[in-house]
Amino acid sequence: MNKKTSFSITYQIQSTSEEEALQLSTALSIEQTVEMPADTVPDHLKDNIGRVVSLTKTNEKVWKTVIQFSGSLVDDDSTQFLNVLFGNSSLQTGVKLVDIDREYLSQICNGPVHGIGQYRINMGVKKRPLSCTALKPIGLTPGELAERAYKFSSGGIDMIKDDHGLANQNSATFKARVQSVVRAVRKGEQISGKKTAYFPNITGSAAEVIDRYMQAVELGADGVLISPQLTGLSQMHQLARSNMPLPIMAHPAFSGNYVNHPTGGFSPEIYYGVLWRAFGADFIIYPNAKGRFSFTEDTCKAINHECRNPKLKLRSSFPTPGGGIDRTTVSEWADIYGNDTVFLIGGSLYQHPDGIESATKEFQQILKDYE
Amino acid sequence: MNKKTSFSITYQIQSTSEEEALQLSTALSIEQTVEMPADTVPDHLKDNIGRVVSLTKTNEKVWKTVIQFSGSLVDDDSTQFLNVLFGNSSLQTGVKLVDIDREYLSQICNGPVHGIGQYRINMGVKKRPLSCTALKPIGLTPGELAERAYKFSSGGIDMIKDDHGLANQNSATFKARVQSVVRAVRKGEQISGKKTAYFPNITGSAAEVIDRYMQAVELGADGVLISPQLTGLSQMHQLARSNMPLPIMAHPAFSGNYVNHPTGGFSPEIYYGVLWRAFGADFIIYPNAKGRFSFTEDTCKAINHECRNPKLKLRSSFPTPGGGIDRTTVSEWADIYGNDTVFLIGGSLYQHPDGIESATKEFQQILKDYE
Repeated sequence: MNKKTSFSITYQIQSTSEEEALQLSTALSIEQTVEMPADTVPDHLKDNIGRVVSLTKTNEKVWKTVIQFSGSLVDDDSTQFLNVLFGNSSLQTGVKLVDIDREYLSQICNGPVHGIGQYRINMGVKKRPLSCTALKPIGLTPGELAERAYKFSSGGIDMIKDDHGLANQNSATFKARVQSVVRAVRKGEQISGKKTAYFPNITGSAAEVIDRYMQAVELGADGVLISPQLTGLSQMHQLARSNMPLPIMAHPAFSGNYVNHPTGGFSPEIYYGVLWRAFGADFIIYPNAKGRFSFTEDTCKAINHECRNPKLKLRSSFPTPGGGIDRTTVSEWADIYGNDTVFLIGGSLYQHPDGIESATKEFQQILKDYE
Repeated sequence: MNKKTSFSITYQIQSTSEEEALQLSTALSIEQTVEMPADTVPDHLKDNIGRVVSLTKTNEKVWKTVIQFSGSLVDDDSTQFLNVLFGNSSLQTGVKLVDIDREYLSQICNGPVHGIGQYRINMGVKKRPLSCTALKPIGLTPGELAERAYKFSSGGIDMIKDDHGLANQNSATFKARVQSVVRAVRKGEQISGKKTAYFPNITGSAAEVIDRYMQAVELGADGVLISPQLTGLSQMHQLARSNMPLPIMAHPAFSGNYVNHPTGGFSPEIYYGVLWRAFGADFIIYPNAKGRFSFTEDTCKAINHECRNPKLKLRSSFPTPGGGIDRTTVSEWADIYGNDTVFLIGGSLYQHPDGIESATKEFQQILKDYE
């Protein structure tokens, strides 16, 4: 395949006339590139100005504009790609990013290191959805967290992730926590007779992320959790690019305003399903419909679709809906979302009258029917 | 001063009744902390749940709620502080962050390494506002950029920053660019007889940021430009914490959706003026009123106020409005915004009929009146 030397981005803009919509599109093509009056751009660099290649009316007030950008603005730099995509335009009202050139993205991004196929092999789970729970709350000691992890593991859960608020607090420092929990999970596996993977949270400053990632490898964790909007998306991409062995689970903390803006931000499926996948997330956690957050079922389905969409020539990501899923509803969601899904369940397992281990067994039993 | 062991955050929420507003506030206090049903939180950890300390009606539909959080949720970790501040709550509709406990923030954050006072000493400018321009467009060679930088410098501009889109493109790789521009700026200073500071853009992945920062130091740059929302705020904070010598200029690329959300996100003055200052920006670029973006003059004044507000017990930041400022309007803005401001001017200097050097001289002449 020839390398693409330009890429197109689709924005949704607000306007009541075609003339104004075209003006806005042209302004956008300048804002995201040369960022200076067109008459001050030297002639030999005019090609660096984005080019409006199509403009379509969506409804009375909304237009879709496709802008083509020169690849030389980016030169394979994925951080600078984000900047051309939505740097200054994020500051303008009424500009929403609704599509990204997948072919170009496939060219400059790594995607997940494992992806759905490889992760199924790692876990020895052929077909059924996977289960994941969150280790919490903040404030428990490493011993108390390990005790909970042991119960989840002996109950046979597929994956345990740290609560995304577990950082390096005195109550459970990173190293002590990971040591204790890994040990407990391995012990639990002896009871369940199956694999349970543990993903500690490595979110922190750039130096801390690297340090915790290396500790996670050394201490025998099975993956890592990161909140890419807190660390910067490029930080996650850097881990995915290093081709180190641990799969990456991405948490949406601090990212909401990119996807719940009425006229700005990103379409949620493009932000999570396309961008986070391209930037290396093997698992993409998002707030499920009917839970405590605001996504509709259609939005969730669209995210799932993009996580697995073969149009992006990179490994696929497991969509990982969280919130509002328990053992009474998981079958329903599995039927809707399909097998290539990880179901993130927290509260309902902790609330089960017979305790965590029994709750987990019940949950796994339901998922077994999908194998 | 005693160390604070808790901190309060003020959110604005949408509700038509006090009862519902209280329910929403309580849900928020759980969401941002233990993130599990209150009845499943062990008794000895109940204090880790945030506590609603006040709830005030703003208008028929809007309430202000103040939630107090235990410091043990954070333990001096500024990334985890961002998570408690606005992690999951960013995903909820109708939750806007409108105030942050400055005293606690002063305790866990570094603030700018230089600040307004020290930077004035560095530059030998006692009282007047400072000028800054952007080196652009993308696509110019290091030689061509250096030529422009020379003209700005010989015209006597105070500061030159890279366009925030200049990364490490083949047309002007980081090292070649910084080498050429530093040399040109030093040569220009011989003509103007005054200091011109050059801030190359170091935005990139975590590893690239560190590498480019070190190169900037070695190659004799006078500061660095970074887009913290592209790199992660913690990345900037890490540089500010390292106590290395270069002042940091922060660019708002990719940050717009945090501040232009009608019912979510942050108040712009809190996001830029408080948070970015606390996380180490000596200069905070924001889109000026009456330019190509959408902030009102009142919002800009509020950002300026927070950049310099002594309530935050950290060094102050220079507010750096950009967009819509030229030599015909700068006096007006200087009178409104006050002397402790850096005026970022791009297009109008490039458009001047007599060229960059003359344009710069005229601009500096106007600012001299404020000394």
